[in-house]
Amino acid sequence: MQFKDIKVTDPFWTKYRDIVKTKLIPYQWSVINDDKDIAIEKENAGAYDAVEKSHAVENLKIAAGLVKGHFYGFWFQDSDVYKWLEAVAYALRYAPDAELEGIADSLIDIIAQAQEPDGYLDTYIQIEAPTHKWTHVSLSHELYVMGHYIEAGVAYYQTTGNQKALAIAKEMGDCIDANFGPEENKMHGYPGHPEVELALAKLADETGDAKYTRVAKYMIDQRGTHPNNFFEEQLKNVQTKKIEDPYFGDASQPDPDAPYFQNDVPVRDMQSAEGHAVRMTYLLTGMAHVARQTGDESLMAACQRLWEDITQRQMYVTGGIGSSAPNGEAFTFDYDLPNDTAYAETCASCAMAFFAKQMRDGRQDADYGDVLERELYNGTISGMSLDGEHFFYVNPLEVDPEASAKDPMKSHVKVQRAAWFGCACCPPNLARLVASVDQYIYTVTDDAIYADQFIGNETTFDNGVTIAQSGNFPWSGEVTFQVRAAGSVDTILAIRIPAWSRHNYQVTVAGKPYAGVLDHGYLKIKQTWSGTTTITVSLDMSVQEIHADHRIKDDVGKVAIQRGPVVYALEEADNGKHLQANSVAADAQFTVTEDNSTFAVPTVQLTTTGTHTDAATVPGTLYGASATVLTHAQPLVFIPYFAWANRTPGEMMVWVYQH
Amino acid sequence: MQFKDIKVTDPFWTKYRDIVKTKLIPYQWSVINDDKDIAIEKENAGAYDAVEKSHAVENLKIAAGLVKGHFYGFWFQDSDVYKWLEAVAYALRYAPDAELEGIADSLIDIIAQAQEPDGYLDTYIQIEAPTHKWTHVSLSHELYVMGHYIEAGVAYYQTTGNQKALAIAKEMGDCIDANFGPEENKMHGYPGHPEVELALAKLADETGDAKYTRVAKYMIDQRGTHPNNFFEEQLKNVQTKKIEDPYFGDASQPDPDAPYFQNDVPVRDMQSAEGHAVRMTYLLTGMAHVARQTGDESLMAACQRLWEDITQRQMYVTGGIGSSAPNGEAFTFDYDLPNDTAYAETCASCAMAFFAKQMRDGRQDADYGDVLERELYNGTISGMSLDGEHFFYVNPLEVDPEASAKDPMKSHVKVQRAAWFGCACCPPNLARLVASVDQYIYTVTDDAIYADQFIGNETTFDNGVTIAQSGNFPWSGEVTFQVRAAGSVDTILAIRIPAWSRHNYQVTVAGKPYAGVLDHGYLKIKQTWSGTTTITVSLDMSVQEIHADHRIKDDVGKVAIQRGPVVYALEEADNGKHLQANSVAADAQFTVTEDNSTFAVPTVQLTTTGTHTDAATVPGTLYGASATVLTHAQPLVFIPYFAWANRTPGEMMVWVYQH
Ligand SMILES: [Zn+2]
Ligand SMILES: [Zn+2]
Repeated sequence: MQFKDIKVTDPFWTKYRDIVKTKLIPYQWSVINDDKDIAIEKENAGAYDAVEKSHAVENLKIAAGLVKGHFYGFWFQDSDVYKWLEAVAYALRYAPDAELEGIADSLIDIIAQAQEPDGYLDTYIQIEAPTHKWTHVSLSHELYVMGHYIEAGVAYYQTTGNQKALAIAKEMGDCIDANFGPEENKMHGYPGHPEVELALAKLADETGDAKYTRVAKYMIDQRGTHPNNFFEEQLKNVQTKKIEDPYFGDASQPDPDAPYFQNDVPVRDMQSAEGHAVRMTYLLTGMAHVARQTGDESLMAACQRLWEDITQRQMYVTGGIGSSAPNGEAFTFDYDLPNDTAYAETCASCAMAFFAKQMRDGRQDADYGDVLERELYNGTISGMSLDGEHFFYVNPLEVDPEASAKDPMKSHVKVQRAAWFGCACCPPNLARLVASVDQYIYTVTDDAIYADQFIGNETTFDNGVTIAQSGNFPWSGEVTFQVRAAGSVDTILAIRIPAWSRHNYQVTVAGKPYAGVLDHGYLKIKQTWSGTTTITVSLDMSVQEIHADHRIKDDVGKVAIQRGPVVYALEEADNGKHLQANSVAADAQFTVTEDNSTFAVPTVQLTTTGTHTDAATVPGTLYGASATVLTHAQPLVFIPYFAWANRTPGEMMVWVYQH
Repeated sequence: MQFKDIKVTDPFWTKYRDIVKTKLIPYQWSVINDDKDIAIEKENAGAYDAVEKSHAVENLKIAAGLVKGHFYGFWFQDSDVYKWLEAVAYALRYAPDAELEGIADSLIDIIAQAQEPDGYLDTYIQIEAPTHKWTHVSLSHELYVMGHYIEAGVAYYQTTGNQKALAIAKEMGDCIDANFGPEENKMHGYPGHPEVELALAKLADETGDAKYTRVAKYMIDQRGTHPNNFFEEQLKNVQTKKIEDPYFGDASQPDPDAPYFQNDVPVRDMQSAEGHAVRMTYLLTGMAHVARQTGDESLMAACQRLWEDITQRQMYVTGGIGSSAPNGEAFTFDYDLPNDTAYAETCASCAMAFFAKQMRDGRQDADYGDVLERELYNGTISGMSLDGEHFFYVNPLEVDPEASAKDPMKSHVKVQRAAWFGCACCPPNLARLVASVDQYIYTVTDDAIYADQFIGNETTFDNGVTIAQSGNFPWSGEVTFQVRAAGSVDTILAIRIPAWSRHNYQVTVAGKPYAGVLDHGYLKIKQTWSGTTTITVSLDMSVQEIHADHRIKDDVGKVAIQRGPVVYALEEADNGKHLQANSVAADAQFTVTEDNSTFAVPTVQLTTTGTHTDAATVPGTLYGASATVLTHAQPLVFIPYFAWANRTPGEMMVWVYQH
């Protein structure tokens, strides 16, 4: 069974997708064409800090021979263009736009011209170091940028039928297949930055050509095996071949087994998620996809083990992953989830959503939808301002502007979203996720339609069933499914009951209460459908004070306020300074108020009466055995975490003390 | 009035001073002579990380022309030798040792030979860059190392009468006076690293020659004034004159107004303690000393303002100061006192003790004695293991070995004390403080003897009074003063009542309760003393749960356990892992037990029944709205903070959650 046509009608996501279509996509287009006079945020320390403009489209034009010039920017800059194109592909599905499609078609023409006859395309190498093709894929992003094009080309073809877009992708896939594999005359290697694996799997799905899966699987299987001559030699090449790379040319020889590369052990032996969080999660996304395509159970078992490691030991309550900046945007160790030095890159949350979808497509378990929901309503969309033109790379759970300004360990924790980044991976990643959010609503199997997300939609399935899902999620827990069947159809409708509501929910089918034992978190309604059947779902939207595992040091004694899937935060704009001096009672009563005025999107505000400590010591003394801690009752206003930093800059805090 | 002779009889300090005399001093002598096969801890990142031995005495021998060779080590390595010598000077007062004195005398002969005819002595410059004398004092430590010699030379002369030791110091002082000052032909400058100011003030006290005070005051007055040609030019010299300095030769031009240097505003305009904590506190020590010598009230007012800034907004409960590693061993901003990334250099706590003493000598206020006491029983002596041969540079308030190993932001936070450091400022600084602790017990004025510290001693004052102070402080709060007067003597005995006991203490004089209003924290007993009068002081030794100011983010919801002046800590050796999962009740009852077996010094152990959280969420889930937090009652063992890391390495935590 498949779904043929899906239309998002959801108020929340319609608004977000509108921002992406009308603001982010044109904004990013002007940025990557250097038409926008914006301040580029220097997000990463290092040689590339001096990046002052994008130049990404210009690089393609130079490689295409249309203009003359030098490559400029990060050596993976091409991917900014491709992720923009992918977002356009999805946006055109819900907002057809001939002018935008024309612009994208012209861009594809340029890309086609830039592509070499053998399918290779990496503007940095082509313009600046043509003799160094494939000589340092351990550090270069050649496979990474081509992977991103493949994703974009497939998506654009699926939307528009543009054959050239698909042809470029296939030629790239052929080029990669021609160069990598077990055969004597091929490179026995794989990229330092995984991404191409998941892209090749998508290309195989689209084309039906298993060779793309085969080369993806080869790279996955080869990764981390020892001896590891290819990877080591390619790392050495950076020094010995004197590649003209202003970044890596200066770098000391990296350890090929550094956790950063996910290269120390074969992927099936990995016990925990390590290293650069986006690399790890892109790799896992590709692994899960290839495992499903090939029926590789040991590979799927590794995916599941690492899924549990991330979600049970290394994930923020917002869905953020990769808690360390100085380790290299990386995972650290179990339960190490500091709030005020968090990294939690927007891309990493997006990648976790991609990974969740691949796991979901392989296994029927609501856990994947739960985590995906956590990402969708919190740690991904926090990466974009509600004007669609400012972005976070880092998504902290606690911010003090003074600390961000004065503490080098917190300099990566920004108080305001930036107009753009020198390393601009995050904004287009978020754009393509939001624009394709419809893909995450349902999963279909031979005998069931799984409703994974409560995103309002009208969808036609190829078994003759049409579902209209409506509501005002995530602000309301009342969700209605209207199932219309052409004739009579036997199928299961399985509705994910979110973990946060599993203790308390009600479902009616055709007006009658429907009870059933949850199967891996799904309520399964198996019947013969005919005519129109109305199903209502009532989820528990009471405000919850969420505890963290006691091994997370920074969250001890604190709670996160959550309602439905939305994690809340205190902001200075509502609550004044010294947010840490506030606490809430374990049995605090919250007032729930619809708020259509504070932000550019409607939200729900939570208010309660907390306790604010005015003095824990005698004023003027830093420490004291005070029996008389001075406090006052203080109204506390909680706003959705994703909406923070859309007003006057100030303190923010997710985890608040509980008394 | 002066005290003529002081003998420490205190059990606590006798033990510590014995460790310094019998272990630390011989150990350090072998280290600075490269006789010891030890692992040098690479404490600081940078070019000098490769320091593999001390070479400090050898550098002096080379400069003296006794052997040939190159300078090796940090460019301020001479100070290690001088601080050792100063510690020896104090140790010989309580433990005469002809052999050690002979070694020291011979060392002074070498130093005399190394000194140039004009009094200059800096082995790094003399051996490696003789043409660069005085060309980069903004970054060099020429004045710093000479200052340390001056301190040592004065102290050694005072103990032994060695005239050569004093003569070297005077010649250095004369050399500095000849080169720095307002006169046309002198340099209008001052060092990047303050220290010489306090040394020159000491030299003035010893010699009675006001010119040393004058040049110290000139440097203090000149500091931070603008235009600031001297300092700026000297910084530029590092680049333009191509000084052969492997460290600073590579450095980019530092900003002369960087807070690091305490050079952005004149010292009288400084509103807060900024920059490198040891530099700041050495500067303040010199400022307070010079202010007293010259009666400079505006300078004293600046000292007081900065004293209050440090002690009321920038000091750990252990007395540690300078909370940031990446800012340059530096102060950061108000109430920024993170426990697990603390810097709190041992030297900075020693320097704070020096500053406290200078403030105390200028003003009658128990506040100085309170802070000094906090330093003496916590943040200074924590810098040394109880075997006298291992040392902390950094004194954290919370340690997780896994975090120290894996988190680059915590790599400076060591779990075990090191055998030595490439930058070895701390161990000898602590040695000279402990060896001279008798100097901190009393302050005398024309009409009063102030008993500032409860360190058992027998002291003769020049007014004919002898005091025998005895007790078992800091473990017992029962202190006895036996005042013996030759004939009858009118004087005030003023006893500091510590802030932690001011709400509850009893004093008897000749067996009768003595009550009086405290004057700036002192109980003043004014009478005509004759024969022997016994005074008893009973301090409140109940265990206190100390709160921090609510603006210290890391301490919210937590308490530090303190008894008397001693701050306590939980260690994994007693309490297992996950120390953060423990909490104590606000009204917890503690058992107080003398402990003569756990550590090499007798201590008092505190035990209570706390609560340990076993699970705050459903096991296997990272977050949850758990109404059933699982806890168990757990015995908690607290040990004195200073004694931590003397057993099996593990977690440590000062601030514990309160429930
Ligand atoms: Zn990113
Ligand atoms: Zn030090």
